[in-house]
Amino acid sequence: MSILVVGSVAFDSIETPHGRVDHVLGGAATFFSLAASYFTDVRVIGVVGEDFTDENEAVLTRRGVDTRGLEHVEGKSFHWTGSYLKNLNEAQTLKTELNVFETFAPKIPAEYADSDYLFLANIDPVLQAGVRRQMPKVKMVCGDTMNYWIHDHRENLNKVLIGLDALLINDGEAKMLAGEDNLMRAANKILSTGPKTLIIKHGEYGATAFFSEHSFGSQNGSGKPGYTSVPFRAPALPLDAVVDPTGAGDSFAGGFFGYLASQPEVTPAVFKRAMFYGGVMGSFAVEKFGTERLQQLSREEIDQRFARIREISHLD
Amino acid sequence: MSILVVGSVAFDSIETPHGRVDHVLGGAATFFSLAASYFTDVRVIGVVGEDFTDENEAVLTRRGVDTRGLEHVEGKSFHWTGSYLKNLNEAQTLKTELNVFETFAPKIPAEYADSDYLFLANIDPVLQAGVRRQMPKVKMVCGDTMNYWIHDHRENLNKVLIGLDALLINDGEAKMLAGEDNLMRAANKILSTGPKTLIIKHGEYGATAFFSEHSFGSQNGSGKPGYTSVPFRAPALPLDAVVDPTGAGDSFAGGFFGYLASQPEVTPAVFKRAMFYGGVMGSFAVEKFGTERLQQLSREEIDQRFARIREISHLD
Repeated sequence: MSILVVGSVAFDSIETPHGRVDHVLGGAATFFSLAASYFTDVRVIGVVGEDFTDENEAVLTRRGVDTRGLEHVEGKSFHWTGSYLKNLNEAQTLKTELNVFETFAPKIPAEYADSDYLFLANIDPVLQAGVRRQMPKVKMVCGDTMNYWIHDHRENLNKVLIGLDALLINDGEAKMLAGEDNLMRAANKILSTGPKTLIIKHGEYGATAFFSEHSFGSQNGSGKPGYTSVPFRAPALPLDAVVDPTGAGDSFAGGFFGYLASQPEVTPAVFKRAMFYGGVMGSFAVEKFGTERLQQLSREEIDQRFARIREISHLD
Repeated sequence: MSILVVGSVAFDSIETPHGRVDHVLGGAATFFSLAASYFTDVRVIGVVGEDFTDENEAVLTRRGVDTRGLEHVEGKSFHWTGSYLKNLNEAQTLKTELNVFETFAPKIPAEYADSDYLFLANIDPVLQAGVRRQMPKVKMVCGDTMNYWIHDHRENLNKVLIGLDALLINDGEAKMLAGEDNLMRAANKILSTGPKTLIIKHGEYGATAFFSEHSFGSQNGSGKPGYTSVPFRAPALPLDAVVDPTGAGDSFAGGFFGYLASQPEVTPAVFKRAMFYGGVMGSFAVEKFGTERLQQLSREEIDQRFARIREISHLD
């Protein structure tokens, strides 16, 4: 099964307690694509400038990612400059240079029309909605967003949320979206107005999925018994060095959705395993700067880490 | 098996977004005793003033807690006033009136001499060390501490830590104690200089146990194979109403240590289950103000919640 992802492909300049890097390949769609590429076929839609080299693109194509939807235009690529010196758990944005991303208008190549799954990474909800409309037949749509869209573009965002099978956001975003400080109540409020399933990411503590009665079995109207009101919490792997947290959430999304897309059916058991694979890919992403660690993993390493996360969290 | 706990028995005045209470029964030893009482025999050592009523004491004795070590002296009981209005995850102390607690000198009644386990709740490490010395034959000693002792009484604290089978502290305390921001490295540093096992409590995200080669099997020199370098992470239960977080950590400790003490042997499997029972008792504690929720639970309710925490975190 194939996943179509739309989002940012960018350069990041990052400083963390472990060092600094300048203009390394980054962007939500990049991290997502690389992480998902270990599980399923991935097709990316984004825009880059003239500074985006063949070698940059090869990072994606070497992992089998289809980059025919990566538009090359005049100008410079999106460039984010951030620091984790004060707090490894929260990026401090020093500079955002949107460049070619400012006028990004996603175009879906004809070859992508038969994509089975759709991931709407964190971009303007108007663009997310536009892509969604052009892909009416996908089996499942997941998406991300951020504080800026929640705070200043709520109406547009709401139109996207209502069509999502799963929304993936972090604690702060969930609380802001619901206007509610308790995570469980925030989750129920969000589920009552939008996505069928909500995944809240807790950074180094893992992630929790909150389900609604529409979480399973409604996509094909078969009404198969899958409803559960019990959330599912997947731990993150305690790491002795978080070199660069950039892209951890997007890598979680890639591991999560990539695994889901690789399975014949999305059952509660498959969903739970997907949460673990999300944690696995997030844990790899932060071990080196940028996308370096995600570029050359083996499925064996991935499954070893899956087993380790199981080991640290299971009674038997 | 019996646990001896030494620590504060106090009155708390608390405000949270759910309301406020004045002079309700509290204190680390109180929460610990009530939580542990559902698993094993508990004996408490503490000091209270003339404002401590028979009804206050009956809260403990109704749960079978042995209060012969609860010293009654002239003056007022320890009184803590705190607020969670700004942040439910971190108490803001408004007033600390030590009163009779200021000159607390723990005395161990003869009837307590045969206690099997010892819990040193958060008090002056000099007092913790004194109690420890008087109980040389206990099978296992666990303890707690707080920022103040870590920061200003480090040498005294170090003498306590080195004799602990398990230290239970929260994220901030662990980072401060190790002088290290990464939890895994902080844990390894703490384990290299002090306790055999370290449990770091993450509040609403659960708790992680970090083990050393001395964690299992060393207490009786049998060298049984129990060593694991793999941490164990137990989730907290997502709750839709945290009414009053006071005592959550002490209740975790009570559930954890109470369950351990109820088992014939402390194996890795038993330890993991104990972490879950810690989470169970912590989750009950915060559902009502003060100790109210811990006063009349049933073992059935406790085991139901254990099963629920298992359900939200296990793949199958």
